[in-house]
Amino acid sequence: MANIVVLNGPNLNLLGTREPEHYGADTLDNVQQRLDAIATDASHQLDFFQTNAEHQLIEKIHAVRGKADFIIINPAAFTHTSVALRDALSAVKIPFIEVHISNIHARETFRHHSYLSDIAVGVICGLGTQGYELALASAIRQLNP
Amino acid sequence: MANIVVLNGPNLNLLGTREPEHYGADTLDNVQQRLDAIATDASHQLDFFQTNAEHQLIEKIHAVRGKADFIIINPAAFTHTSVALRDALSAVKIPFIEVHISNIHARETFRHHSYLSDIAVGVICGLGTQGYELALASAIRQLNP
Amino acid sequence: MANIVVLNGPNLNLLGTREPEHYGADTLDNVQQRLDAIATDASHQLDFFQTNAEHQLIEKIHAVRGKADFIIINPAAFTHTSVALRDALSAVKIPFIEVHISNIHARETFRHHSYLSDIAVGVICGLGTQGYELALASAIRQLNP
Amino acid sequence: MANIVVLNGPNLNLLGTREPEHYGADTLDNVQQRLDAIATDASHQLDFFQTNAEHQLIEKIHAVRGKADFIIINPAAFTHTSVALRDALSAVKIPFIEVHISNIHARETFRHHSYLSDIAVGVICGLGTQGYELALASAIRQLNP
Amino acid sequence: MANIVVLNGPNLNLLGTREPEHYGADTLDNVQQRLDAIATDASHQLDFFQTNAEHQLIEKIHAVRGKADFIIINPAAFTHTSVALRDALSAVKIPFIEVHISNIHARETFRHHSYLSDIAVGVICGLGTQGYELALASAIRQLNP
Amino acid sequence: MANIVVLNGPNLNLLGTREPEHYGADTLDNVQQRLDAIATDASHQLDFFQTNAEHQLIEKIHAVRGKADFIIINPAAFTHTSVALRDALSAVKIPFIEVHISNIHARETFRHHSYLSDIAVGVICGLGTQGYELALASAIRQLNP
Amino acid sequence: MANIVVLNGPNLNLLGTREPEHYGADTLDNVQQRLDAIATDASHQLDFFQTNAEHQLIEKIHAVRGKADFIIINPAAFTHTSVALRDALSAVKIPFIEVHISNIHARETFRHHSYLSDIAVGVICGLGTQGYELALASAIRQLNP
Amino acid sequence: MANIVVLNGPNLNLLGTREPEHYGADTLDNVQQRLDAIATDASHQLDFFQTNAEHQLIEKIHAVRGKADFIIINPAAFTHTSVALRDALSAVKIPFIEVHISNIHARETFRHHSYLSDIAVGVICGLGTQGYELALASAIRQLNP
Amino acid sequence: MANIVVLNGPNLNLLGTREPEHYGADTLDNVQQRLDAIATDASHQLDFFQTNAEHQLIEKIHAVRGKADFIIINPAAFTHTSVALRDALSAVKIPFIEVHISNIHARETFRHHSYLSDIAVGVICGLGTQGYELALASAIRQLNP
Amino acid sequence: MANIVVLNGPNLNLLGTREPEHYGADTLDNVQQRLDAIATDASHQLDFFQTNAEHQLIEKIHAVRGKADFIIINPAAFTHTSVALRDALSAVKIPFIEVHISNIHARETFRHHSYLSDIAVGVICGLGTQGYELALASAIRQLNP
Amino acid sequence: MANIVVLNGPNLNLLGTREPEHYGADTLDNVQQRLDAIATDASHQLDFFQTNAEHQLIEKIHAVRGKADFIIINPAAFTHTSVALRDALSAVKIPFIEVHISNIHARETFRHHSYLSDIAVGVICGLGTQGYELALASAIRQLNP
Amino acid sequence: MANIVVLNGPNLNLLGTREPEHYGADTLDNVQQRLDAIATDASHQLDFFQTNAEHQLIEKIHAVRGKADFIIINPAAFTHTSVALRDALSAVKIPFIEVHISNIHARETFRHHSYLSDIAVGVICGLGTQGYELALASAIRQLNP
Repeated sequence: MANIVVLNGPNLNLLGTREPEHYGADTLDNVQQRLDAIATDASHQLDFFQTNAEHQLIEKIHAVRGKADFIIINPAAFTHTSVALRDALSAVKIPFIEVHISNIHARETFRHHSYLSDIAVGVICGLGTQGYELALASAIRQLNP
Repeated sequence: MANIVVLNGPNLNLLGTREPEHYGADTLDNVQQRLDAIATDASHQLDFFQTNAEHQLIEKIHAVRGKADFIIINPAAFTHTSVALRDALSAVKIPFIEVHISNIHARETFRHHSYLSDIAVGVICGLGTQGYELALASAIRQLNP
Repeated sequence: MANIVVLNGPNLNLLGTREPEHYGADTLDNVQQRLDAIATDASHQLDFFQTNAEHQLIEKIHAVRGKADFIIINPAAFTHTSVALRDALSAVKIPFIEVHISNIHARETFRHHSYLSDIAVGVICGLGTQGYELALASAIRQLNP
Repeated sequence: MANIVVLNGPNLNLLGTREPEHYGADTLDNVQQRLDAIATDASHQLDFFQTNAEHQLIEKIHAVRGKADFIIINPAAFTHTSVALRDALSAVKIPFIEVHISNIHARETFRHHSYLSDIAVGVICGLGTQGYELALASAIRQLNP
Repeated sequence: MANIVVLNGPNLNLLGTREPEHYGADTLDNVQQRLDAIATDASHQLDFFQTNAEHQLIEKIHAVRGKADFIIINPAAFTHTSVALRDALSAVKIPFIEVHISNIHARETFRHHSYLSDIAVGVICGLGTQGYELALASAIRQLNP
Repeated sequence: MANIVVLNGPNLNLLGTREPEHYGADTLDNVQQRLDAIATDASHQLDFFQTNAEHQLIEKIHAVRGKADFIIINPAAFTHTSVALRDALSAVKIPFIEVHISNIHARETFRHHSYLSDIAVGVICGLGTQGYELALASAIRQLNP
Repeated sequence: MANIVVLNGPNLNLLGTREPEHYGADTLDNVQQRLDAIATDASHQLDFFQTNAEHQLIEKIHAVRGKADFIIINPAAFTHTSVALRDALSAVKIPFIEVHISNIHARETFRHHSYLSDIAVGVICGLGTQGYELALASAIRQLNP
Repeated sequence: MANIVVLNGPNLNLLGTREPEHYGADTLDNVQQRLDAIATDASHQLDFFQTNAEHQLIEKIHAVRGKADFIIINPAAFTHTSVALRDALSAVKIPFIEVHISNIHARETFRHHSYLSDIAVGVICGLGTQGYELALASAIRQLNP
Repeated sequence: MANIVVLNGPNLNLLGTREPEHYGADTLDNVQQRLDAIATDASHQLDFFQTNAEHQLIEKIHAVRGKADFIIINPAAFTHTSVALRDALSAVKIPFIEVHISNIHARETFRHHSYLSDIAVGVICGLGTQGYELALASAIRQLNP
Repeated sequence: MANIVVLNGPNLNLLGTREPEHYGADTLDNVQQRLDAIATDASHQLDFFQTNAEHQLIEKIHAVRGKADFIIINPAAFTHTSVALRDALSAVKIPFIEVHISNIHARETFRHHSYLSDIAVGVICGLGTQGYELALASAIRQLNP
Repeated sequence: MANIVVLNGPNLNLLGTREPEHYGADTLDNVQQRLDAIATDASHQLDFFQTNAEHQLIEKIHAVRGKADFIIINPAAFTHTSVALRDALSAVKIPFIEVHISNIHARETFRHHSYLSDIAVGVICGLGTQGYELALASAIRQLNP
Repeated sequence: MANIVVLNGPNLNLLGTREPEHYGADTLDNVQQRLDAIATDASHQLDFFQTNAEHQLIEKIHAVRGKADFIIINPAAFTHTSVALRDALSAVKIPFIEVHISNIHARETFRHHSYLSDIAVGVICGLGTQGYELALASAIRQLNP
């Protein structure tokens, strides 16, 4: 049994209500329920977390050091601005997949650069909230190769 | 009667004492009192808020969703670095004016770019703390055209 | 009693008919009448001028040297291309506010740079023709602090 | 019957005598005569204009608003420097073709950017003074599809 | 029943033997077999194609116009250099997901730009050959929402 | 009698069906027929060719060396990516006009640069399929000055 | 007796355990003890602080305004992203030295720019945790010249 | 006897009164008198001209075509913005020296580029109004080598 | 005995006839004969290949995998545009020398960047067709150190 | 006992007399005496050297190869321009600390880049001539960990 | 009586023989003789110096500190590469004029930037060896205003 | 019989001992001996020179003007920084080949630009010390075509 942590960055608490043309009508609770079911099915434990505060995301990452086996992170706006988040992920040395619900390549230029992607295992973007599920499927296979 | 929210970013609590050559000697309390008077005069309600924390600014914006009719924001340093703030303002779909007390075009190059201006209604800079009052005058006219 | 000069650059004679999605339906005459009323009210004299020619704008600025106390200028397209206009304003040493009716930050990239902003007192943009009135309010307060 | 306006920017009065390796030996009068003949033949009216002054070009464009059906413009040096000209053409909403006698892509780098091309119907360059005739042929077909 | 086309660009015929540190030891045949099984399971038809020639990729895309419902494409090196491929995908108006086996953000700078991503539905990279399966899972859900 | 070659690059076989907002509903066959008629009328021979393969375009150019007197080329996507095509045209030393059906200056930034324009006689863009006819008119006049 | 404040940014709580190849195995507690000893020895008071939150760093700086005589700051990731931190330091007008444990010039390009260095007294980097002690030695000499 | 034309661009009519820290207290009349004396002494004729209008400068240049033997030009702000002026000077093929009273390299970055320098014989800057006299000395020697 | 492959990119079939000022009058057959003689002399086998098609170059490289000991490649225009060629060379892990007949540093700016040089053993340019012979001499010495 | 070499670049012979606002009034002799005392105290030998010639600095570095254990270098202007100095330091493989007396980040932009920093152990700047002493303290600790 | 130093950088010893199309046929001795005559005439002393070594130029500047009243310098290639020369000139605080015999703006791009111009009194370029004489005339007038 | 000069820049005296992973274990003496043998064989005279000083390289080039027929130069670090060296080579008008022992394209970005390549006959890099021999072979063939 592995511990998988799912992290969500700023404004994702509004998911399902905010700019549906970019993010769809699914709420973060719906996402968590679907991911929980998949993790349970695979006999893994899932820890789901959202915050609008950079330091809380960093401290959550510190807290799971030595405990979590895999991180799935949707860093939202912090993708493009937070070196501190990169440093936290790099410090704990837990493999992670970066997920974006919308296709960041089809949006503003400043969304084309990520401070995380080059140290991630991989990136999924534009596939809606299903992106989390695909990332979880990949995490599970990597944990049980 | 409309609800108008005035948001202030980091270090503005020092207003009136910090770098007076850029910001003048007026305090934020003085500003709030003058704005309150103008709003009351126009039969509007004013909610005035300052924080040094990005996530508190974001959560304040989330909190006024569906309640506020207009936002006046002096994002201070977050102007140049916070995509999360942009996303919050964009998510709640409340029209807003961006105010800067000093003339950001006459300062360091990194202050010439704003992550908010292109999604704002408009921008006022360099007109001191009166900038808030001018923004409020504009907000009031837009609310009662 | 102070002398306040309001300068308008190229194509603004079309105001009210040209690209209303950017500039509104107000004409330049309407603007002038409202500004005249405000100035009269504050016992100031207002000199309102529009031209499509860069040299006429420059020569108007030369002409008011030593006479005008404040300039409000909507340089229109010259904002982005005229060093000569900057030099004229810089030479006469009259404080000025730069006004743009539309939000230049939400338009083409080449409109994001101004040759005047860093030597202006301040800038107002995106607040429609009311921007002139707000600039005048600011000028009046600066003249009678 | 349509009204077609042909506009010519600075230094084009020297055509036929200036830098023949770039522009050929044809004069602007020759060009006008050939265009007049073609327009007459197609039962259209042609208004041919040259100026070295940016504001006269702008005011000519204002003057034909609501009257002209198509503009053919060789903006010469203003191509690369005049936002005011762009704004004038954009304001009057008359479709236009941009013509350059020489191949601007084979000349100095600063001639590779045009402030007009992206709002033009199309661009013809490098085909000598015949470029005007080709533009006119295109204008005529667009007017009588 | 839907038709799903899987396209593979240059050098992918070497998969499983080429630079295993970037691409793993799985061959393209293995990938095809796993995808076939998934498609069959979902009652869809799968068309799997690899070529080292840009024009054959373009002509394959032309050939499936009006027939395919979804494309999964690993454009390999063409990602970074082929405007013609972008034009082909854009012309046939079939939704597509872009897949990269390795994490292109962790490799050379020239691999950070894609001519396809902004017109794709989404992008998956760095998740090895499982990336194809995840893309197929997403395609299937989009086809049967 | 001169030999004029008309070359067409990738995806142009879809003309008339692909993205009509950029390219119109005219097919390439229609274009060829109209050009044939014009050439015949002027007692010239026309060789019309389309391919999606860069090497076939290059080899066609090699093949007409010493035979063709003028080339009209719509390089489509190769405009922006093919140095090999530039080298082929430069090697055979046949004068050529570059044609684009859509206005490339009004599209994505990467379409603003051409590897061919600076060695072309001239460029026509944005004038639809009539652009070919205008290029042919110019070619004919250059061949019979 | 002077008051010297030592500030530490995000992820530095992990010091001694995180990426030892960049930061060594020394913990932040060890650092604090060594600095305390040096300060006591010089009859100065030392205030040592670490946080992962930008706003707590800012508010600590506000809190020591008018009290601290010198600041030694290791801003960690905020070095490269926080204008708000720069503004706080600039507002309180307390001289400060910027310290980095690792050599930021030998790491990723985005670590080569600091929002603080140009307003610092000086910068020490790459000398491990001894960098703090060297900064303290410099602060002490500046306080007792 | 040769004809030497001295051209002065925008705002130079204010010379002696405008920003003396950049331009000194000498007026343009003083300059003209000193130049006249030198020219007379060398038996040359001097034509001295100032305008704030780009088109008047262009038309003056056209007017002296075939008459003037040498041009000395202080293009002022047009240095940095006027391709039309470059084209006029290039068209008339009269050798010219570019003069700047202030040292443009010690001022704003946008003053470091000139549209004229690369087609000038030479450039003199920073030597005050004496720069005109030095340019005239050089012109005279070039005319009588 | 080693196998040495010599690869030639697009337009090199025209060698000896194309732009002799850049490439000389030597034909590719001449080159092949001289290289064959040298290889035979050193008891090595030489495989000489030219194509105008990127995919044929790629497939040739695939075909010699595990067979060739050294590659000498003149990629011609593909030098500057083909990531696919880079990937093919990188995949087969055969050491190679990049040869250019002309001095690419003395030509257009876009010829100054190569997608191959940083993974090549070395580069020879500007030494005419003798460059191939020098590369072969180097290959032979590397094969028999 | 270790050998420590202190190198000083161009114009540092003027120290104490040159631009005291950047460098203080301390002379290089004073610096040497203080460093000698510290080194003697730690039982190390110190070799102090200044030159205005790049090749003498390079040859000094060559001369201490295999003899010196640590280098402290204030490369002065060569910091920003000398690849040869970088190569010399890199060739002898002696660890070194880069020292700047002034804060180079607060000066001209061209002083923000160093050809040495990324291969140095660390960098100290802005702490006046004490910077040498701090570097020596660090060197001594690194030599006797 | 003032002391005026004339400094000449690398390769200027070849003057009169090297690339006469850029520098003319005048030798450096000729220049020195003409300058000596002018200086003597004005009762000033002239010290004329040429070297190919950067450090000799620097040390010459150091040597004349406190003795020379004005420097005229043709830094030749060092213009574009020597920060050390800039520092030397800046350190001795002697006013200087920068002279270039050829028009550097009409040559390679890397010659358009000077490390000296912004701290010079002024710059003369393109006026041949007479440029030295004009600089001397200016120096003399500045010394005897 | 021709005179061939071989020039070597800074740090090359360390060859064979310095960074063997880039430069190999061959010494400069070995290189000279092999080149001497080849030159003697071809009845040419060889002059071999190394220096760490830019001015000595320049003066050596001046000294061989009118005597040497060909130069082979390994400018080492001066490749990337010395305009003076470029000017010297350009002044003496002796054809030269630029040699680099290591593959500069596989090293730091600042080594990708050379101030010499565009005026060289050609460039050889990455082929170790044999690069000198290949350059000599090319020089000999150019001298005896």
